[in-house]
Amino acid sequence: MDYQKIIDTIHEDLRYHDVFGEVASYIPELAKVDPKKFGMHLYKGVNENYSFGDSTEKFSIQSISKVFTLSIAMKLLGEDLWERVDVEPSGDPFNSLTQLEYESGVPRNPFINSGALVIADILVSNLKDPKKELLEFVRKISGDNAIDYDYKVAESEKSTGYRNYALVNYMKALGNIKNDVEPIVDFYFHQCSLAMSCEELAKAFMLFANNGKILGTGEKILSPTKIKRINALMQTCGFYDEAGEFSFEVGLPGKSGVGGGIVAIHPEQYSVAVWSPILNKKGNSELGMAALEKLTTMTGLSIF
Amino acid sequence: MDYQKIIDTIHEDLRYHDVFGEVASYIPELAKVDPKKFGMHLYKGVNENYSFGDSTEKFSIQSISKVFTLSIAMKLLGEDLWERVDVEPSGDPFNSLTQLEYESGVPRNPFINSGALVIADILVSNLKDPKKELLEFVRKISGDNAIDYDYKVAESEKSTGYRNYALVNYMKALGNIKNDVEPIVDFYFHQCSLAMSCEELAKAFMLFANNGKILGTGEKILSPTKIKRINALMQTCGFYDEAGEFSFEVGLPGKSGVGGGIVAIHPEQYSVAVWSPILNKKGNSELGMAALEKLTTMTGLSIF
Amino acid sequence: MDYQKIIDTIHEDLRYHDVFGEVASYIPELAKVDPKKFGMHLYKGVNENYSFGDSTEKFSIQSISKVFTLSIAMKLLGEDLWERVDVEPSGDPFNSLTQLEYESGVPRNPFINSGALVIADILVSNLKDPKKELLEFVRKISGDNAIDYDYKVAESEKSTGYRNYALVNYMKALGNIKNDVEPIVDFYFHQCSLAMSCEELAKAFMLFANNGKILGTGEKILSPTKIKRINALMQTCGFYDEAGEFSFEVGLPGKSGVGGGIVAIHPEQYSVAVWSPILNKKGNSELGMAALEKLTTMTGLSIF
Amino acid sequence: MDYQKIIDTIHEDLRYHDVFGEVASYIPELAKVDPKKFGMHLYKGVNENYSFGDSTEKFSIQSISKVFTLSIAMKLLGEDLWERVDVEPSGDPFNSLTQLEYESGVPRNPFINSGALVIADILVSNLKDPKKELLEFVRKISGDNAIDYDYKVAESEKSTGYRNYALVNYMKALGNIKNDVEPIVDFYFHQCSLAMSCEELAKAFMLFANNGKILGTGEKILSPTKIKRINALMQTCGFYDEAGEFSFEVGLPGKSGVGGGIVAIHPEQYSVAVWSPILNKKGNSELGMAALEKLTTMTGLSIF
Repeated sequence: MDYQKIIDTIHEDLRYHDVFGEVASYIPELAKVDPKKFGMHLYKGVNENYSFGDSTEKFSIQSISKVFTLSIAMKLLGEDLWERVDVEPSGDPFNSLTQLEYESGVPRNPFINSGALVIADILVSNLKDPKKELLEFVRKISGDNAIDYDYKVAESEKSTGYRNYALVNYMKALGNIKNDVEPIVDFYFHQCSLAMSCEELAKAFMLFANNGKILGTGEKILSPTKIKRINALMQTCGFYDEAGEFSFEVGLPGKSGVGGGIVAIHPEQYSVAVWSPILNKKGNSELGMAALEKLTTMTGLSIF
Repeated sequence: MDYQKIIDTIHEDLRYHDVFGEVASYIPELAKVDPKKFGMHLYKGVNENYSFGDSTEKFSIQSISKVFTLSIAMKLLGEDLWERVDVEPSGDPFNSLTQLEYESGVPRNPFINSGALVIADILVSNLKDPKKELLEFVRKISGDNAIDYDYKVAESEKSTGYRNYALVNYMKALGNIKNDVEPIVDFYFHQCSLAMSCEELAKAFMLFANNGKILGTGEKILSPTKIKRINALMQTCGFYDEAGEFSFEVGLPGKSGVGGGIVAIHPEQYSVAVWSPILNKKGNSELGMAALEKLTTMTGLSIF
Repeated sequence: MDYQKIIDTIHEDLRYHDVFGEVASYIPELAKVDPKKFGMHLYKGVNENYSFGDSTEKFSIQSISKVFTLSIAMKLLGEDLWERVDVEPSGDPFNSLTQLEYESGVPRNPFINSGALVIADILVSNLKDPKKELLEFVRKISGDNAIDYDYKVAESEKSTGYRNYALVNYMKALGNIKNDVEPIVDFYFHQCSLAMSCEELAKAFMLFANNGKILGTGEKILSPTKIKRINALMQTCGFYDEAGEFSFEVGLPGKSGVGGGIVAIHPEQYSVAVWSPILNKKGNSELGMAALEKLTTMTGLSIF
Repeated sequence: MDYQKIIDTIHEDLRYHDVFGEVASYIPELAKVDPKKFGMHLYKGVNENYSFGDSTEKFSIQSISKVFTLSIAMKLLGEDLWERVDVEPSGDPFNSLTQLEYESGVPRNPFINSGALVIADILVSNLKDPKKELLEFVRKISGDNAIDYDYKVAESEKSTGYRNYALVNYMKALGNIKNDVEPIVDFYFHQCSLAMSCEELAKAFMLFANNGKILGTGEKILSPTKIKRINALMQTCGFYDEAGEFSFEVGLPGKSGVGGGIVAIHPEQYSVAVWSPILNKKGNSELGMAALEKLTTMTGLSIF
């Protein structure tokens, strides 16, 4: 299969496409991003890389970081993790708080904000220096030591992140948060601020397409069972309340972020990252969704 | 891989296993089933069939029938279907009615009851004799002309199906039901009463593992794109509010029914059906879930 | 106090007032009413009656009838009634079905539709000919034997009342409906179709301002305790999700209907009925609310 | 009417009554209160005071303080206040957060916690020293300069008040909180910690039974219209999700607190306060509810 040709066709077809959504603006720093940015990187092997556009420019990965923190929490706690957070799709954009109310503060899954905040609480409890160790983990699996937090974005989120403060306080009231509010929220805003390019993201996520081993070095980071489960979670919960739509149109496990990035993997085949900052109504990158739909249509490959 | 040995090990491991749930009792007829029934059938090819226990005994397939009616509706309406029903997980056991209230009568997906009733409405609108044509469809794809409705079960559901009457009336009030209430509900209770064995179910579902073609005859019933989408829907929505758990533990698209049956498929590999009437708290077969979890663990194969 | 002058001022102030709402149209028959109709009748004593406009023209009293059926149910069951229906405000326009889901089919109060349908079920269980006996009750307390159902309106509601069918079926599924669906709904649509004028309504409701005795004859119909409780219910639950607003602006117990009628009482003082078909967003008569607000402001009297 | 005799009978009937609830324990300081405390004070005139038991012992008035802060906010903002908070019953114990989600951060009424926190925000915006000015207001209307905050209780609430922090942060995310979180919560926890006896509470609330004038001095504090509206709010929203029950059983406007206090007023007749720390399931004083029900039954007086 000529992946570069497919990638180029996607670029050609979509680059002048009208998009109707808007760049995320609730965080002042994110609103400054050029809405016309568009890049994609498909990583099939150490020497098999295909890309177009702004694929090497760093952007704020936001919720994509939840896959990294979940991976660390699974290493730390194993099966005990699932007493603190469930594995079911959340279903409803409105139910984040309602659902917590009915289910005693146990978030529906680790990819909604409440779930990621519980994961943050777990990392704060179990790691000496969670911010440093997260950075080391991401640098290791992507093989890139230049990856760092964007401290301006982290600061910007902190000054407007009242909804996340509300969630942590609420779960603390319900007994599912063990640490003080501040260090959890501080860690969470930093993880969301991670700045990575499509190329770096694709390399990092190859871990999930390669049964838990780093593709270049072969180093084993996570067991195949854990990888299978993380992929299943991305499949059912990776796209807020558009997880079904993504599964339906694209047919791959993946995760999106409000910075406009999306990563997806085809187990044992490839990982792919795409970036375009304009979001649809559900908060996922409009062009990113379209690009990945085209990719699985043109390659004829999906997990289904 | 020695599938018969794997199947036998599953049987051996689980047959004396303590189960704590109960047989579905809300329909009087279903409550009469022997709770100790246990069978499984894996269909890999015309001459590659593996089974154990009560794999040839017919049982009430209940919600598994929703995959058949969805398939017919997709053939009839194509993309227009998705104006009447969405493709997102429902998330919440409680939200069937609430969700309809907020989303103008458009059910979250075709596998929750409200969604299946909209599909029933579509079939009643578009088919001359919906009950007869559904039967013909199921007989054709499973290659078994003896498959039939269990009229006692259909009658039994009708006399206690107030919740389904409520759903149809409510969606009619919200404008998403076009026919009279009675013929829709009558069709729906009949589809749920379909009596099939594990062997018959596995054969019928091979359609979804075989890109839309009947395995034996090669006859094309559905396009690969439609099959991919039905499989994606089974993956994200096939197990009520335990879809995430099934995806997480088993890693295959599938569908369960309160009669205690579960079918799952591994695209381009096999289809498998299992039956044990005792249900867990979420309404899925307790042993069935365990058997499929063992199957993907022992074969080391899942879509992830 | 010169009540006639106050009544005339209200008429003068409001008759040319711009109203922005619309006449109820979900029932075809109600949509035919002349939106400019406007009448009021205040009943202070057998020889103390004040009125203006279309005060003697009959209109569809709709939900106001729920006060009559509740009164009969309280006579029949006494305190046992409250096992079937609660006495709390419903709070939320959206929660009728949701609330039933969480509270095992026990409606929040007898004035929301689900509650009134449970009351209808009780009357169907306990009365030989519920339609006839309701009519006798209303004729007796208003002293007017010409009051009757509007059979066209009842028929019209039946053909479009899917939401009420949904509620009865749903409560039957939850175990809080004892009779078949049809006779309950038939009775309910008839009670709503009662056609009465402001004058007749004011006379009928004097029962609730007069400690349970018919003002003219002195006949005792309900105990003072029961009257106090019905009045408390009108105060907290009489205006859908605008009960607080009515209490806040008017300060009297009352009940509204989508036909554009409102009745209110001042215990031991008077009863008053007003009619104007144009409804505000919450489903209460726009001019009716304004007229009663003016009444309590100008008389300086409210229960607070 | 012999009020003292009535009061004494209430005492006699209830003092050895079995109560099944528990003292509020979510605030450590409140859990220390002797559960057997029981006192009542009815204030009919400067020289007409009736009481029993622990009527002069101070307790934590908690949510009763919301009536005081609402009164001050109404003086400050007049009608503009109602853009920030609604006047409808909340209906549902579960809906505090859900309701905010659907209604853009506008709390249902000023007596649920979210509403009281908006009122606190308003006082923080409009008063130089809100804690001092609230104290002056309460001292003035009750004629007692010894009334003060219980700083230990305030501190105790602060250390466990995560749910209130969640509410303020959440409303700030939704745009209905203008100040920083900390000063609002600090003020709120202090207002709840106000320590007053039944006698002091009854005197303070005479303002609401006396058309807005202090009974002893005749000084006018609030207009009759504002008083009428505050009373209407107490009637429909004063008892969490038991407002209907209180209205139904007692028939007076009132307000309860988790410290076990309840105050109620009969306009132009009397104000009454009762205290017993053991709460029923809905969070209202069990004996307090019973005592007031007896009071209106024995006096035969309610607003209905």
